Amino acid sequence: MPETHVRRRAALRSRLRERDLDALLVVDLRNVRYLTGFTGSNAALLVHAEDSADDEARTVFCTDGRYLTQSARQVPDLERMVERPCADALAELAGRQRYRRTGFESHRVTVDELDVYTAAAGDVALVRAAGLVEELRIVKDDAEVEALRMACAAADRALADLIEHGGLRAGRTEREVARELENRMLDHGAAGPSFESIVATGANSAVPHHRPTDAELAAGDLVKLDFGALVDGYHSDMTRTFVLGAPADWQRELYDLVAAAQAAGRAALRVGADVRDVDAAARGVVEAAGRGEEFLHGLGHGVGLEIHEAPALAKTGEGRLSAGMAVTVEPGVYLAGKGGVRIEDTLVVRDGDPELLTLTTKQLVVV
Amino acid sequence: MPETHVRRRAALRSRLRERDLDALLVVDLRNVRYLTGFTGSNAALLVHAEDSADDEARTVFCTDGRYLTQSARQVPDLERMVERPCADALAELAGRQRYRRTGFESHRVTVDELDVYTAAAGDVALVRAAGLVEELRIVKDDAEVEALRMACAAADRALADLIEHGGLRAGRTEREVARELENRMLDHGAAGPSFESIVATGANSAVPHHRPTDAELAAGDLVKLDFGALVDGYHSDMTRTFVLGAPADWQRELYDLVAAAQAAGRAALRVGADVRDVDAAARGVVEAAGRGEEFLHGLGHGVGLEIHEAPALAKTGEGRLSAGMAVTVEPGVYLAGKGGVRIEDTLVVRDGDPELLTLTTKQLVVV
Repeated sequence: MPETHVRRRAALRSRLRERDLDALLVVDLRNVRYLTGFTGSNAALLVHAEDSADDEARTVFCTDGRYLTQSARQVPDLERMVERPCADALAELAGRQRYRRTGFESHRVTVDELDVYTAAAGDVALVRAAGLVEELRIVKDDAEVEALRMACAAADRALADLIEHGGLRAGRTEREVARELENRMLDHGAAGPSFESIVATGANSAVPHHRPTDAELAAGDLVKLDFGALVDGYHSDMTRTFVLGAPADWQRELYDLVAAAQAAGRAALRVGADVRDVDAAARGVVEAAGRGEEFLHGLGHGVGLEIHEAPALAKTGEGRLSAGMAVTVEPGVYLAGKGGVRIEDTLVVRDGDPELLTLTTKQLVVV
Repeated sequence: MPETHVRRRAALRSRLRERDLDALLVVDLRNVRYLTGFTGSNAALLVHAEDSADDEARTVFCTDGRYLTQSARQVPDLERMVERPCADALAELAGRQRYRRTGFESHRVTVDELDVYTAAAGDVALVRAAGLVEELRIVKDDAEVEALRMACAAADRALADLIEHGGLRAGRTEREVARELENRMLDHGAAGPSFESIVATGANSAVPHHRPTDAELAAGDLVKLDFGALVDGYHSDMTRTFVLGAPADWQRELYDLVAAAQAAGRAALRVGADVRDVDAAARGVVEAAGRGEEFLHGLGHGVGLEIHEAPALAKTGEGRLSAGMAVTVEPGVYLAGKGGVRIEDTLVVRDGDPELLTLTTKQLVVV
């Protein structure tokens, strides 16, 4: 949909003018994808700031010879340069065009790369301009929400299949479960997992970012699954925690506490809410139960073309929620050496109630 | 094996002294892993240059609270700091210690990160020092070659299983074949694929870096598989090309040409050889057959903790081969719209003949 990319570039150009930039050199591939639709592994973009009739005509996309066919199909609407390395060639172009102030992504560009761009640009000033595209990406448009919806659906379906086929049973290893889950996401249209899946059983469930091992699931274990699917470049993220067999009282109490905190976090997802207040809404529930010290991380994070992006729903976060932000809500309480529970959804902030994208039940499922 | 890491750090310290550096701030995680054995996702290292009895004692490893247990086990032999962000904390330490010239990895550190380090280091000078650890990594030690050997064996076994179980047959899609191959590598001990597997059938085989699609393998197709396994952080890389059914004359001719070029490339892998001459040895065979224009890339590249690392065996490469370098040899000839053949091994340069790590036959296999 070229019009989506035209609209995104227009929004970016308006920001460039606000910052008195003539142009922006975009090298982050996710940002290039966001602005053009290009999915290859090498490209850069020089976005011109002017808002005249022919402003798009001055924006140049660059890739290398491997992507001639693909870029012609995916980026039919921009002038194309075929050079390698792309960013150097576009910096040189900015110099030739005598763009007065050209922004560059100082949060992505290395010190050595900047030397090369600076030499290529000649006497045109390269100006730090970190995060301009990321600021646009924080609010998702319909096409992005649809990709996230599909990614979340692939994860939901994979988990349903796993359980239905007895995939969570005593004697299987964490690694085997992770692999089955990832394969089932592929069955449901994922290009791959959106990050290294977490499968943590028994005491391992108390480690927030446990990596799957050869540990075997055993009767009575808490089993924590944190995983997601990648669809059209967008990442889903969901955690569910199960009990293998009848839950002990402490497991049910822990589960109910985290579920209550998670519901409070979701309820706080309102347009205009301060991200720190959203974190506090869930954290307060855990603290009131005397477990605040065992909630070891922030409440959630934005998701999109990256698995972790703005906004951070955390004590250290900044800013307020807007409609269209896609975030996770994932409180966890971890009893070291014993077991932990985390419950996580991916949601979109809306006027009124947020839209829930991960649809798997949050009732305690006993398998 | 802490002694391996002690030895690597000693070699690095000697390079720091040659460059008149007091210390090096290492932020690249692969370099941190190489120097310490740490496999987590967040760490940095401040290596002190002194070559006195207590020089190791002045080298400090930093990670965050998630990795307390893991880092105690993997890095028992260095002073440990638990801070976040690690690199900022170590830059501050360099400042406190009043290290005169502290190197940083200018090929990895972003412009914005350097600002933070500089502020943290106070009036200690941060000096560009790109690629110092990578220069050590170019020659593999025994532990590294063993990991590469296991990674190559996992790929060899997966391919043998795939063929034995009829995995390459008309009607299957490229995507299905890629997925089976990747699953079979996991069966043989891989932590994952070492890069996105290439399965390219028919005319797609003429695209050097084709991504698997829903295209179906068909009788008479050339089928190109380029894939590898990841074991202990080390990457294997192998390409084989098959014919589905009896090969046509042009397919056999193309195959024999690439096989001859590949053999010439392997034969040129000698200690002291200029990397450009190795490329030329294989390329000359293709050029003599009038196909030079259809050999679209360099002959090969180093492999190790990264899938592509130094040295580049290419026209634009630099330097000479040493014993212990691990490289690929992968000529390809691509007839656009028709089909292509690439044959690739991973090998280690040795005194005398190179050591072949990918053991799958290079005879034309008709499946």
